[in-house]
Amino acid sequence: MTDIEIARQIKLKHINDIAAQLGIGIDQLVHYGKYKAKLPLDLIDEEKVKKSKLVLVTAMSPTPAGEGKTTVSIGLSQGLNRIGKKTCVVLREPSLGPVFGIKGGATGGGYSQVLPMEDINLHFTGDIHAVERAHNLLAALIDNNLQSKKRSLNLDPRQIFFKRVMDMNDRSLRKIVIGMGGTGNGIPRETGFDITVASEVMAILCLSKSIKDLKERLGNIFIGYTMDQQPIYARDLKAQGAMAALLRDAMQPNLVQTLEGYPAIIHGGPFANIAQGTNTVIATKTGLSLADYVVTEAGFGSDLGAENSSISSAKVQAYRPV
Amino acid sequence: MTDIEIARQIKLKHINDIAAQLGIGIDQLVHYGKYKAKLPLDLIDEEKVKKSKLVLVTAMSPTPAGEGKTTVSIGLSQGLNRIGKKTCVVLREPSLGPVFGIKGGATGGGYSQVLPMEDINLHFTGDIHAVERAHNLLAALIDNNLQSKKRSLNLDPRQIFFKRVMDMNDRSLRKIVIGMGGTGNGIPRETGFDITVASEVMAILCLSKSIKDLKERLGNIFIGYTMDQQPIYARDLKAQGAMAALLRDAMQPNLVQTLEGYPAIIHGGPFANIAQGTNTVIATKTGLSLADYVVTEAGFGSDLGAENSSISSAKVQAYRPV
Amino acid sequence: MTDIEIARQIKLKHINDIAAQLGIGIDQLVHYGKYKAKLPLDLIDEEKVKKSKLVLVTAMSPTPAGEGKTTVSIGLSQGLNRIGKKTCVVLREPSLGPVFGIKGGATGGGYSQVLPMEDINLHFTGDIHAVERAHNLLAALIDNNLQSKKRSLNLDPRQIFFKRVMDMNDRSLRKIVIGMGGTGNGIPRETGFDITVASEVMAILCLSKSIKDLKERLGNIFIGYTMDQQPIYARDLKAQGAMAALLRDAMQPNLVQTLEGYPAIIHGGPFANIAQGTNTVIATKTGLSLADYVVTEAGFGSDLGAENSSISSAKVQAYRPV
Amino acid sequence: MTDIEIARQIKLKHINDIAAQLGIGIDQLVHYGKYKAKLPLDLIDEEKVKKSKLVLVTAMSPTPAGEGKTTVSIGLSQGLNRIGKKTCVVLREPSLGPVFGIKGGATGGGYSQVLPMEDINLHFTGDIHAVERAHNLLAALIDNNLQSKKRSLNLDPRQIFFKRVMDMNDRSLRKIVIGMGGTGNGIPRETGFDITVASEVMAILCLSKSIKDLKERLGNIFIGYTMDQQPIYARDLKAQGAMAALLRDAMQPNLVQTLEGYPAIIHGGPFANIAQGTNTVIATKTGLSLADYVVTEAGFGSDLGAENSSISSAKVQAYRPV
Repeated sequence: MTDIEIARQIKLKHINDIAAQLGIGIDQLVHYGKYKAKLPLDLIDEEKVKKSKLVLVTAMSPTPAGEGKTTVSIGLSQGLNRIGKKTCVVLREPSLGPVFGIKGGATGGGYSQVLPMEDINLHFTGDIHAVERAHNLLAALIDNNLQSKKRSLNLDPRQIFFKRVMDMNDRSLRKIVIGMGGTGNGIPRETGFDITVASEVMAILCLSKSIKDLKERLGNIFIGYTMDQQPIYARDLKAQGAMAALLRDAMQPNLVQTLEGYPAIIHGGPFANIAQGTNTVIATKTGLSLADYVVTEAGFGSDLGAENSSISSAKVQAYRPV
Repeated sequence: MTDIEIARQIKLKHINDIAAQLGIGIDQLVHYGKYKAKLPLDLIDEEKVKKSKLVLVTAMSPTPAGEGKTTVSIGLSQGLNRIGKKTCVVLREPSLGPVFGIKGGATGGGYSQVLPMEDINLHFTGDIHAVERAHNLLAALIDNNLQSKKRSLNLDPRQIFFKRVMDMNDRSLRKIVIGMGGTGNGIPRETGFDITVASEVMAILCLSKSIKDLKERLGNIFIGYTMDQQPIYARDLKAQGAMAALLRDAMQPNLVQTLEGYPAIIHGGPFANIAQGTNTVIATKTGLSLADYVVTEAGFGSDLGAENSSISSAKVQAYRPV
Repeated sequence: MTDIEIARQIKLKHINDIAAQLGIGIDQLVHYGKYKAKLPLDLIDEEKVKKSKLVLVTAMSPTPAGEGKTTVSIGLSQGLNRIGKKTCVVLREPSLGPVFGIKGGATGGGYSQVLPMEDINLHFTGDIHAVERAHNLLAALIDNNLQSKKRSLNLDPRQIFFKRVMDMNDRSLRKIVIGMGGTGNGIPRETGFDITVASEVMAILCLSKSIKDLKERLGNIFIGYTMDQQPIYARDLKAQGAMAALLRDAMQPNLVQTLEGYPAIIHGGPFANIAQGTNTVIATKTGLSLADYVVTEAGFGSDLGAENSSISSAKVQAYRPV
Repeated sequence: MTDIEIARQIKLKHINDIAAQLGIGIDQLVHYGKYKAKLPLDLIDEEKVKKSKLVLVTAMSPTPAGEGKTTVSIGLSQGLNRIGKKTCVVLREPSLGPVFGIKGGATGGGYSQVLPMEDINLHFTGDIHAVERAHNLLAALIDNNLQSKKRSLNLDPRQIFFKRVMDMNDRSLRKIVIGMGGTGNGIPRETGFDITVASEVMAILCLSKSIKDLKERLGNIFIGYTMDQQPIYARDLKAQGAMAALLRDAMQPNLVQTLEGYPAIIHGGPFANIAQGTNTVIATKTGLSLADYVVTEAGFGSDLGAENSSISSAKVQAYRPV
């Protein structure tokens, strides 16, 4: 049987029942249909976080049978639950791009899957959409400033390093010229689109501990240089407030279930090639607050994974993107 | 008091209570938190649709006090409910672009608002995100075919008329050159981004009666010409299946409430300047199936509104975009 | 026999002999090989100009046999010479573009040709090359100012209307984006190439009466607008001196011969579609100073030709390009 | 006194007198005014070439006083002439770009100059113009083939490596997008302009021994790849005939004089950074045929200069551009 055939055989539990396993009341859930819910930030209990165990799964490459970090993490959390350990698996959200590409979805395989698979692989609860909107709002503000008569920031159109993002395998957007077509359409310049999970906004979302923290980090995003070689940040455009408003719901972790009906939290997905490659700090802490064991995975190589674990275990003091 | 101050004074009813006013059971709802829900397509009852009354509100321009089509529609539906007529207002979804621009949101004003205002004005239930993804997936497939060694469709890079979309006021994307940077990045060509609500996918979503109908209409999207001047459609790229998968949830109408706690369905929002400028046919029919009176609005001028009403009253046989 | 076969049968006279027909001494000639020479500006005698007769040939379209303005002008001047009238034909220089295109060269046909045909049709004495260099020097100065740290002229990259030129049928250069590739390569902007004969520099060369006049007219070339909508001219870049230096030799009219060995002056070739469409004022005046009759042609339609004749007869007071 | 003041003090000899020093008859000259002439190819005498002495001047960098390869070569040839050795200096033509840039002209300095300086530094006898036209004609043919309905060569627009050239310091043309604006204007693609002396056509002109040899070498210019990764050459576009026609006059070496009135041949100027960095083989051979000693210079470093000398001494069998 294929992964999808296995998944479709399963009768999913209502998300209220999954929440109950973690001691979460129905009223605390923000439902997204019957099988997905967002969790409020106030579930985090810093004392409990310290007491619970965090198991990090990392690896260099999957086995030929396809057993990789995600599959092992899900399987391990299911096994721990079966032997009576209150366990939650905490994972990254899949990007849409690979779903339609060669890599396929990222919800595990065989009997180690998180469900509902199709929802998680497509729009899920809209977190990646929100990251994309917040990111592209900043980009639009940059070009708006550049073309305004006053050009209050004196930006150099050749030295704007903040690109746009789209959650799509669309190589033809990697390198583009924008702002063409005359005075109504901005200033011509070279730029490009990255995939959304490579957005610095995604990396920031995954590291932020609160909306206040989020806003501050968003304000620190480096945009580019002025004609006089002065650095410009998102805060110079007063962009962080509107960006944070767009990310308000996306800050909340998402609760789903494993194939065997145990709780799984899936939240955040920074691109491992260029960023920390692990789920949100909030998700890990929420898991540690609600379960005695959290199984998580990180990296796209064991070395990076181990390094990132120190991030996911919430001990990171600062985040400085290259 | 400003609109937002009025809105914040209100204690919202649970969406279950709103649904109950229309006779919808809790199990039939797809909850998006406590105050929004999607409605299943099988609530439509064609016999009931014929019996209910459809009130169309249209106008050329708002009054100086800001009373326009949306405000009047909401107020009228509230009044009808107060005098004991089982009424549902059915409206378009607002686009994100104008929210951050001069026009502001589109959830009414004063005591004629639909709520929760911020949710509706930002991501809502993700319908516009889904339209954008489906649209841009087709765009990515076009450029992928163009750059492939075989170029099976023999597309002329100068005659591709299907652009990309983004739900953002971002004029610098209106006219761009893509596919630059060498053989890995597609074929250079001129194109641009429209706002998402101007997408033909949005227009199609609003006219489709079923997933099957949706797929067929998506397949009929005209893309451009080959080097031999032959027209190419989305179906030539076999794009409609994946596009429809991305639109599955977006097909379901969204239930919210008016400021006075009466039911409101908000679904679909094609750009009135270039498309039919009215909510989905499914939303209107769902309203007519559940209430005795449906108040809806259309157009961005009374003539266009009246013409569009014939579309929204579901009597349209064919849709042919220019 | 084809035009070229007829031309090759002819034994050309030495240019010294042609000059002698007009009373020009060998020392006054600037030789370009044996069959071409440039004439000094001081041959112009304003008194004689007034006394000589100027015959203007114009027409709407050639006969099916190919007899057009050029052919008639050459033939008429040969006939006048044969009946003893001291006559010089004065014509425009051909552009290289059409030589390799459909239109072919512009040296007449049959027994009404100017020779040496290949030289005249290709580089001739370098006048068009010089116009192109002077024009493109100004273009380079514009982009240099635009990208400099000071941007002393505050030019708006979207409102620079002065393009570049190339004497080539090269449609792919009509609309381009330049200044790409980073800070070393200028500021990105949309522009294009026209054919060299459409250059305003060519139009100016044809109207200028002296180097001083030339410089002043070059300085008046309109370039575009600043970010504050102020107009900018070539003189703001102090470009006119270097441009005039490049045009010094091009100011001198070129002496060649007709197929029957009578004098022909060929000088300047503004694109009739957008400019005055007649040879230089200096050439006409030189002809009128040396011969009793000058036959010239103008326009690419009889109405335009007649209107232009007033220009070529040197009575124009002002020249204002659109 | 500055170089130009020294130059202007000199009363130039007529080019006929310079030619006489080398035993060239007036009828063999192609005059370009009184002080420049082109020399026919049949002056080359292979037997005499073998007997004469070729002195190569090369160096790493000039002295602080500005004495470099050119200055030393001119001075040495003047000295040899003064002590009675029949000597001709043979040099490269200067590019226009540096004349208006920081580097200034390339006609020597002090009392070691070649004259007439301004002519040589600006258009000279049009050789560089001709190289540019021939080069850009090929470029236009490439884009014409690319956009034609048949696309007979199946060229990949991303893999065309033959750029355009312009004899101008114009950095904003280094990296451009062409072919924009719709079906009438070619196919969009990235390309750029090099300076004309960096053209492979210039390198070829300097190595060719005859028009036949020139045509063959021009036909061998590599253009780029097809969509199927097959290499395409200029001969596939049948471009070499028209290109050679444009280069006919440019094949002939140019005779001028040194400041002391001795003969100097100046012909060809390939960009030393990327090509052979020495004058034409024809010019060196013409010098060796007419004088007993030829002083020439090469390279932009002594190592490259020495290596290039083997090229300039006409022993090269093949030329293979990188």
